[in-house]
Amino acid sequence: MLKLYHAEPVANSMKVLIPLHEKGLAFESIYVDLHKFEQHEPWFVAINPEGQVPVLDHDGFIVTHSTVINEYLEDAFPEHPLRPADIRERAHMRYWNKFIDEHVMNHVSMHGWHRMVRKIARALDKDELEKLLERIPLKEQRDKWRTVAGSSFSEEQLAEATRKVSVAIGMFEKQLGETAYLACDSFSLADVNAYSHCGMMAERMFPELASREKTPGFLDWVDRMTAHPGVQKALAGPDHTNPALRTFTGEAS
Amino acid sequence: MLKLYHAEPVANSMKVLIPLHEKGLAFESIYVDLHKFEQHEPWFVAINPEGQVPVLDHDGFIVTHSTVINEYLEDAFPEHPLRPADIRERAHMRYWNKFIDEHVMNHVSMHGWHRMVRKIARALDKDELEKLLERIPLKEQRDKWRTVAGSSFSEEQLAEATRKVSVAIGMFEKQLGETAYLACDSFSLADVNAYSHCGMMAERMFPELASREKTPGFLDWVDRMTAHPGVQKALAGPDHTNPALRTFTGEAS
Repeated sequence: MLKLYHAEPVANSMKVLIPLHEKGLAFESIYVDLHKFEQHEPWFVAINPEGQVPVLDHDGFIVTHSTVINEYLEDAFPEHPLRPADIRERAHMRYWNKFIDEHVMNHVSMHGWHRMVRKIARALDKDELEKLLERIPLKEQRDKWRTVAGSSFSEEQLAEATRKVSVAIGMFEKQLGETAYLACDSFSLADVNAYSHCGMMAERMFPELASREKTPGFLDWVDRMTAHPGVQKALAGPDHTNPALRTFTGEAS
Repeated sequence: MLKLYHAEPVANSMKVLIPLHEKGLAFESIYVDLHKFEQHEPWFVAINPEGQVPVLDHDGFIVTHSTVINEYLEDAFPEHPLRPADIRERAHMRYWNKFIDEHVMNHVSMHGWHRMVRKIARALDKDELEKLLERIPLKEQRDKWRTVAGSSFSEEQLAEATRKVSVAIGMFEKQLGETAYLACDSFSLADVNAYSHCGMMAERMFPELASREKTPGFLDWVDRMTAHPGVQKALAGPDHTNPALRTFTGEAS
């Protein structure tokens, strides 16, 4: 029995929803409403002490962190593989996963927090914010909430994050000129990661970096990724984001 | 034919030397002298454009980044496994590897740069430093050299790094009260990672955090790790660090 605790189909939640759907696995979807801070509630922290989504529950075995979950899904359900059989392609996949986890995700996310979470944080009154902060298990997460509730990230921090995203998109464009997907010529967990944390929102969030003129290979790959049946199914999941705040998760500009 | 380009038996180089020796694999050891900045020389950057050690060359196939290399070695040479057969233990191993890569390595390393690399950087004259910086491919590495050549990391940055190391050692101590090794009851790549980036230097670099009184389980695990035959063989490799600077790599206090 598989259960996935997840939020909107974007970023880390999207990254696990795609393989579950692509592999055709039956799972119970448990939506955790980040807008109501459910991930910090005692019932959820009892499942994941870090107070973060997504979380996979496989017959009572709990797996956290999307890159770890996705490798676990390949180990547990090898049919319809998203991890290449060729060990060299597998090394490429892990190289990209590590690069995205360490040099892309947090930098796109910083802009998401600055543009979207900041508005949520500032709509809270001081007491509500303090009550919220008290319940957040990870210091790193408390610090981010304090930052966006206050003066937010500095121009210098945001510019450095943009530079990192620019380097990443340049690397994706180059690789996608050589192979159809990032790790090799077939769809792998590296693509799932890059799409969920950067590809799916790049044109909307960073139009100066990702465009049909500047990065045609990258955006062609985004289109091919979006068309994948598992990606389509994942995208059809609930999105409770206030439409006015959808610079990160969806349609609004 | 396996070749490993590596530096001193510590941190990322140590992390790949241990599995090679533990698995009993024959390999050509190519020592890259970081004290002479050989990792930025054209011959080396032609092999790894990031200008970083370690690099594995397996019949001409190049693998970079120690976590990726170690999973590749398990894929290519499954005998004497350091990746558990049980998929749940394997998920634990990857959880720890990710935690160490993202929340431990850079924080121990910051103290290493502050205490050791800073002295090397400051011994260079301005022209030598500029020549050195010009050849470094990664901006992140150039920034670190500029930082330690200048006023170094701030007290606040160093204190935050110490806090992260303290959290990590607390987690190691707790886990090692439950299992003999980090991911399970047997030696795995998680232990190799934690030992190479934290365990082997913790008592020397952070005596206020790691001691026989405060963290007996952690230091018992360090002793058991040090006694492993593959670790012993790796430790016997060349160490060209100036003895006066060995706060990070070795004997000096």
